[in-house]
Amino acid sequence: MTGVALPAPGLPMAVPQEGLPARVRIHEVGARDGLQNEKSTVPTEVKAEFIRRLAEAGLTTIEATSFVHPKWVPQLADAERLMPLVSGLGVRLPVLVPNERGLERALALGVREVAVFGSVTESFAKANLNRTVDESLAMFEPVVAKARQAGARVRGYLSMCFGDPWEGAVPVPQVVAVARRLADLGCQELSLGDTIGVATPGHVAALLTALGEAGLGPERLAVHFHDTYGQALANTLAALRHGVATVDASAGGLGGCPYARSATGNLATEDLVWMLNGLGIDTGVDLTRLTATSVWMAEQLGRPSPSRTVRALSHEESS
Amino acid sequence: MTGVALPAPGLPMAVPQEGLPARVRIHEVGARDGLQNEKSTVPTEVKAEFIRRLAEAGLTTIEATSFVHPKWVPQLADAERLMPLVSGLGVRLPVLVPNERGLERALALGVREVAVFGSVTESFAKANLNRTVDESLAMFEPVVAKARQAGARVRGYLSMCFGDPWEGAVPVPQVVAVARRLADLGCQELSLGDTIGVATPGHVAALLTALGEAGLGPERLAVHFHDTYGQALANTLAALRHGVATVDASAGGLGGCPYARSATGNLATEDLVWMLNGLGIDTGVDLTRLTATSVWMAEQLGRPSPSRTVRALSHEESS
Repeated sequence: MTGVALPAPGLPMAVPQEGLPARVRIHEVGARDGLQNEKSTVPTEVKAEFIRRLAEAGLTTIEATSFVHPKWVPQLADAERLMPLVSGLGVRLPVLVPNERGLERALALGVREVAVFGSVTESFAKANLNRTVDESLAMFEPVVAKARQAGARVRGYLSMCFGDPWEGAVPVPQVVAVARRLADLGCQELSLGDTIGVATPGHVAALLTALGEAGLGPERLAVHFHDTYGQALANTLAALRHGVATVDASAGGLGGCPYARSATGNLATEDLVWMLNGLGIDTGVDLTRLTATSVWMAEQLGRPSPSRTVRALSHEESS
Repeated sequence: MTGVALPAPGLPMAVPQEGLPARVRIHEVGARDGLQNEKSTVPTEVKAEFIRRLAEAGLTTIEATSFVHPKWVPQLADAERLMPLVSGLGVRLPVLVPNERGLERALALGVREVAVFGSVTESFAKANLNRTVDESLAMFEPVVAKARQAGARVRGYLSMCFGDPWEGAVPVPQVVAVARRLADLGCQELSLGDTIGVATPGHVAALLTALGEAGLGPERLAVHFHDTYGQALANTLAALRHGVATVDASAGGLGGCPYARSATGNLATEDLVWMLNGLGIDTGVDLTRLTATSVWMAEQLGRPSPSRTVRALSHEESS
């Protein structure tokens, strides 16, 4: 029997720091980003139960699935069956929509929040979307416009904001230009993705400063760090100092980028909550319940969580 | 065949930040702290080769072994045989000395730099040293005095500076009091240990501020973070902002605290070097050579490195 417990009462000790947000909204991506590359099919009821448990642990924004063509992401082919199972949870349930057809499917199910997934680099736009950056933005234009007309909230993902496996370091002005265009299309929130996990805190600060100078302040931004080189929390700390108060993370550290070399991908929500608890920053998340959820999901997937916090807090009890 | 290579040229991109040290000295603990709890005996020649390769990778301070009684740490019982094998490398080779007998053995071999290992909490002093904090400081007093008389440099380790598995959160004034006493005994450098890995950045900042007010500024301090909950690099960033320029780390993330719940322990030197490279902070370390060293050592120990950077940079080549 797996038990979950903090190492001792009162840990981590909460010591607030000046200049950081009082509250952070976690945009939980485990159910979509975390599962999309999973090889064996996860039953729809397991996905729904995962989302229910995440909501019970206190997460208020849970990216649920993607309305991409089933040919490209077979794991998420059950989007139509999943959404009705979770729509009554009282939390925000954004979904990914790659094109107008996907948007229509999502809106028909009553979805109120969607996201488009753009690339900052030509190499990744080609690899992931088989389009140039310009062509992909042209594809998103009617998607964002129609979503907004339907009253839906729209997030724009920017991938490869810091480095690209084919192009190396990505210049800051290149990221700012694509961010500005997604904002001008009507995306209300932009999520800055370090898709291969190569960012470091100074680079994060430089990008956020440049975006602010281009009229894209922290209230418009989310950060999406990968832990491939162990940098995700240090980068998150740099983003908090710049006022960013929306942070993407994946319960148990599920998922990652298939183009990154390592199996380690998304920042684990538990590692993030540990740091935010220690900084006295409110998230509304119950760390013990969240960790128990990730332990349960790891059992469904048949392999342990890569999250350091999940590993440390969960232990086999002799029963 | 295992190859080691950066994900793309120019990564991580170096983006310096104001207010951080220009250079950081890494105090490499893999050969001592990393190996001391290893169950199967590592041959002395393998330890010597590990230290040689660490020096060739650019590390300038490599904690080599401990002159503790072989009954307590059988893995390091070969200290007398190891030191002559590495003494000509031209790097600093500090060793742990638990008492006067250990100091005499070390000085007889020409050791120029020693460390004593103290505890901030009564519970850990009892568990690790079978003494009260006062009794352990009394034991260290003649050790530090004689080491200084012999012209040796002395480091004082403080363990459980942030939390303790028995006592929970550790009050900052309690850490300051023990630090002040170790400094007054004659320790020239104090290494602040987060032995169970529960610190977060605000707590780190609060402790460093309080130490500064007690006359122990960053030039006297090193930080020794564990990655049990994934917080080590974020905590390091907080320490760098306070001017600390000596950081303890373990190649490949070897070792950890047997009293912490998780197998993950010491901050991996590779993860640290990745961040410092990204911040444009000079360490003198060649990340590729260091990673290759950790891959080699993991092969000797028969299990993979827990370092995220080592895992991401090393990959099986089809040959």
